[in-house]
Amino acid sequence: MPNRYAYLGPEGTFTEAALRALEPGAPAASFVPCTGVDAVFAAVRSGEVEGGVVPLENSVEGGVPATIAELISGEPLLIDAEVAVPVQFTLFAREGTGLADVKRVATHPHALAQCRGWVARHLGDAETFTVSSTAAAAQAVAEPGAPYDAAIAAPIAGERYGLTALVEGIGDRPDAATRFIRMVRPGPLPAPTGADRTSLVAFLSDDHPGALVELLNQFAVRGVNLVRLESRPTGDGLGRYCFCLDAVGHVADARLGEALMGLRRICKDVRFLGSYPRAGSDTEFTPFMPSHGTTNADFHEAALWLERIRRGEIA
Amino acid sequence: MPNRYAYLGPEGTFTEAALRALEPGAPAASFVPCTGVDAVFAAVRSGEVEGGVVPLENSVEGGVPATIAELISGEPLLIDAEVAVPVQFTLFAREGTGLADVKRVATHPHALAQCRGWVARHLGDAETFTVSSTAAAAQAVAEPGAPYDAAIAAPIAGERYGLTALVEGIGDRPDAATRFIRMVRPGPLPAPTGADRTSLVAFLSDDHPGALVELLNQFAVRGVNLVRLESRPTGDGLGRYCFCLDAVGHVADARLGEALMGLRRICKDVRFLGSYPRAGSDTEFTPFMPSHGTTNADFHEAALWLERIRRGEIA
Amino acid sequence: MPNRYAYLGPEGTFTEAALRALEPGAPAASFVPCTGVDAVFAAVRSGEVEGGVVPLENSVEGGVPATIAELISGEPLLIDAEVAVPVQFTLFAREGTGLADVKRVATHPHALAQCRGWVARHLGDAETFTVSSTAAAAQAVAEPGAPYDAAIAAPIAGERYGLTALVEGIGDRPDAATRFIRMVRPGPLPAPTGADRTSLVAFLSDDHPGALVELLNQFAVRGVNLVRLESRPTGDGLGRYCFCLDAVGHVADARLGEALMGLRRICKDVRFLGSYPRAGSDTEFTPFMPSHGTTNADFHEAALWLERIRRGEIA
Amino acid sequence: MPNRYAYLGPEGTFTEAALRALEPGAPAASFVPCTGVDAVFAAVRSGEVEGGVVPLENSVEGGVPATIAELISGEPLLIDAEVAVPVQFTLFAREGTGLADVKRVATHPHALAQCRGWVARHLGDAETFTVSSTAAAAQAVAEPGAPYDAAIAAPIAGERYGLTALVEGIGDRPDAATRFIRMVRPGPLPAPTGADRTSLVAFLSDDHPGALVELLNQFAVRGVNLVRLESRPTGDGLGRYCFCLDAVGHVADARLGEALMGLRRICKDVRFLGSYPRAGSDTEFTPFMPSHGTTNADFHEAALWLERIRRGEIA
Repeated sequence: MPNRYAYLGPEGTFTEAALRALEPGAPAASFVPCTGVDAVFAAVRSGEVEGGVVPLENSVEGGVPATIAELISGEPLLIDAEVAVPVQFTLFAREGTGLADVKRVATHPHALAQCRGWVARHLGDAETFTVSSTAAAAQAVAEPGAPYDAAIAAPIAGERYGLTALVEGIGDRPDAATRFIRMVRPGPLPAPTGADRTSLVAFLSDDHPGALVELLNQFAVRGVNLVRLESRPTGDGLGRYCFCLDAVGHVADARLGEALMGLRRICKDVRFLGSYPRAGSDTEFTPFMPSHGTTNADFHEAALWLERIRRGEIA
Repeated sequence: MPNRYAYLGPEGTFTEAALRALEPGAPAASFVPCTGVDAVFAAVRSGEVEGGVVPLENSVEGGVPATIAELISGEPLLIDAEVAVPVQFTLFAREGTGLADVKRVATHPHALAQCRGWVARHLGDAETFTVSSTAAAAQAVAEPGAPYDAAIAAPIAGERYGLTALVEGIGDRPDAATRFIRMVRPGPLPAPTGADRTSLVAFLSDDHPGALVELLNQFAVRGVNLVRLESRPTGDGLGRYCFCLDAVGHVADARLGEALMGLRRICKDVRFLGSYPRAGSDTEFTPFMPSHGTTNADFHEAALWLERIRRGEIA
Repeated sequence: MPNRYAYLGPEGTFTEAALRALEPGAPAASFVPCTGVDAVFAAVRSGEVEGGVVPLENSVEGGVPATIAELISGEPLLIDAEVAVPVQFTLFAREGTGLADVKRVATHPHALAQCRGWVARHLGDAETFTVSSTAAAAQAVAEPGAPYDAAIAAPIAGERYGLTALVEGIGDRPDAATRFIRMVRPGPLPAPTGADRTSLVAFLSDDHPGALVELLNQFAVRGVNLVRLESRPTGDGLGRYCFCLDAVGHVADARLGEALMGLRRICKDVRFLGSYPRAGSDTEFTPFMPSHGTTNADFHEAALWLERIRRGEIA
Repeated sequence: MPNRYAYLGPEGTFTEAALRALEPGAPAASFVPCTGVDAVFAAVRSGEVEGGVVPLENSVEGGVPATIAELISGEPLLIDAEVAVPVQFTLFAREGTGLADVKRVATHPHALAQCRGWVARHLGDAETFTVSSTAAAAQAVAEPGAPYDAAIAAPIAGERYGLTALVEGIGDRPDAATRFIRMVRPGPLPAPTGADRTSLVAFLSDDHPGALVELLNQFAVRGVNLVRLESRPTGDGLGRYCFCLDAVGHVADARLGEALMGLRRICKDVRFLGSYPRAGSDTEFTPFMPSHGTTNADFHEAALWLERIRRGEIA
């Protein structure tokens, strides 16, 4: 029996598209749609599925609060894979419906927000309705006697619900994307590939200023680049934040290992979320420091040197 | 005629409570509830009202996306005041309803999330329903033939809708709070009070690493503390962020003025959102640098010294 | 009557060569040799001469203590020019003396140290004697009945004392150089040339750690590069240092002016020693920060922007 | 036979006093005076003596160039002890000479410089003569038919040469001190005492800016304080420096070991000069960073944590 994977449903969402991209050969029957991000995490924790796929951040909307809340304070799981899915919206209708026939359009509020310009230009007279997901909109349109003429949904939803694509690529930001992660139960990490990402949550100590700069310097001094930095409230009152970080590299790398130990020492708490192959490229906005002297070989050589000088072998 | 103020409605929300706290003597008739954060901003821009109050961040949920989106990319307005409102939830019912009678409870999804523990312990058998705001829940309960027995809402909602408080303070986090800001059209800034806050959005230049540390250093070197740092996607693709910052002090302060000029020079863009009296206290988590030599008098003395040495008067 | 200049004598030293390089057309009669660096400073202070030339640092020996002591704690003067003179040594003798005849060689101890290799290879059997300056050695050789057969001295000494060059370029480090500075009484600074150097002494505040990093950051944040950093004891006990710094740029530059004001605010004391045209190039080993946003125009634009936002003109 | 120790002679110098302080019970016969710092190093290297004592820095004059040159570029030796000796000067004469009889005073130039004020006030009419060391001055005064009436020398010189102290403590800076180090051949390091000092020379890579700040940050991030930072020319041309550093702690300490490995990776070269018990206290002027999370126990705990997360044990 193949592995089973939970995902944020219903069927036909961008999350299902992400899961298919991560498990290209898997049978559809092994995919388990869940209602809500928390349900996906729960299914993984319970052992009901091998892994679960959820959205982490969108290039327009930012971090997905439900996912981040689980990563920050839920029972720990590991991220073992990620994938970035372009957020392309399609206007779907039942067969036989033309663009001119569309008077009532359903979709998810975020999708509506991201297609507002196109809708204003091409469907200025139509009414818009928001429902719980883009897939739910597609499903509603597909039903006999549907209250809507068309749905704005992910490309994958058409096939799923037997709808016809009236217009593709109607998003106002053609380069919009969402990053999805797959969660698994704690266990051996994916092997380093040379192009990895490591995700963390760092809780700063409250009792001294400069904590954020200290934190960034722990990475900078070892030449570790950051690609994501997202502050989130800790829940302990206004002005108290933790930081969700993605660093370039694998925890098995010497430089990243040393940086994490530094974080561990200066932070109130550090949550390790996983090291996994990096999908796509993003801007590396920190640090300002060594690009030289940071390979595993550099660390190894320096460690041997330290052993020698600790024995007084300096000649 | 008194000034009129828009706020995120409907009547009876936490936002109305915030507005009342900012304008304690104003007649209720001068308060204009709006549907949606964007409508509040629009009412201020159009001149229909003098100012508008919206939530900015919650100590549990984090930044309010709709507000932050307006601050980052909407037509510029200024923040001229802030207030932090404790997020205390009350269980309201019609007169004559007892706790034991409550079988159907309505509220906003965030409120439900924040009262989940209490509800599980005391209303384990009741059904819960989510509606568009806590005030809408209260309003629905107040109507004859209401489909709900009780509403979880802000304390202010009881008076507004003629309901009875069954239980107060049912939130799981008794110290939860939301910070609200008042937006006005560009014009003279509030005078410095000695305890001010300055809000900014900084867009990093993409083309060089270390940009975030550089940014923090611009504050650190002048001894300016930060109290909020929130990354938001710029919308230009995954991994591209801008930073919403709150610094301690007023733009009229020498040290803050110099820091802002530094930001202006190194960033792709900087949006100034306002300098205004600081409500409450929060953790100052950066920088790690001078607490000495940072008063207006220090800056003035140093400027006079520079003038002298530029004239060669060193003796 | 032309300006008169004091220099570290006697005639025929590298310092005289430096003075000639700075005042190429001046008559020899206007050059006043002094015995000792302190005498040069005294001659300038008294008004007896317009300026005085002294060595500041040598690429092999480091800073010249007597000069640095005057800069750190003497009555203030300004540096208005610098010149780097290659330290090339010549073996001089009276006419008729051949290399094989040289049995007794005189020179200054530093010169001997810098020619040790050549002397060992070519004059292995000769005796060496050290005197108070290379010029004094040349003078001694030139006298009738001289106790020495040859002198190691600056190329300029041959002409001065009527000696013959036996071998040129006998220094072990052919690229050795000494930097000389000209001191003048306080007054208008040399105009910026676009390639200037500014010299300072910074006395750190004792009472807080991190003072040196703070100091370097004051330059780094404004994109000002340092080319010299020399620690010197303050004289107040072991472990207490001041720092002699050379920064790239002129105090009239906006970025350097702002950095100096920052230094003034955080240091116990700052001595400004002068801004003057930079001779030659040297390694710029700090900072790690902005190369962008640091021109006078950038500062001017940022200042105008700050004025606007202080007036609330953000639209 | 007891260990023998070389020192910078002649007998009766401050260096002999330093050696006595380091070896309080050793017989005088085991002390070998050398002419010149280089001779002391040579005696240690050759195995002729067990160790050699030389001055490293003076609180008024700064680093001792001959010693620093050996540390930077001589055949490597280890520092295994240090001692700080107060620089107190005594005016010595032959028995029967009174202060009023003193017309000719001999001493070393540095000593004369450090007693200039006292001499001007009390011996304004006397002639002063400089010789090669304070001990040589004392020796000269002690001889029959001496050309001098008095010598300014270290307190130890009186006993050595049978002179009478006319006036003690005549230095202008009563708190002046010199730090001496003892050099030994490479071998096992002194055990950590909890109050140690580690000496290094760091040669920066030329090819990138910010190298000095990077270097300081390697210490700062691990919470290692520096107590001495002295730049010296590398000899490769003006503007090229190496840095002689003293860090607080022992190379056996986890935090210092990690900092040294960092230095090794980013520098062109690092010379380890020794870890040894720290004599006296000095100002710790860097870094600005963690005082928490820097004990050996903190490092050990963090290393165990890293092992766990590398195995995926996060639950």
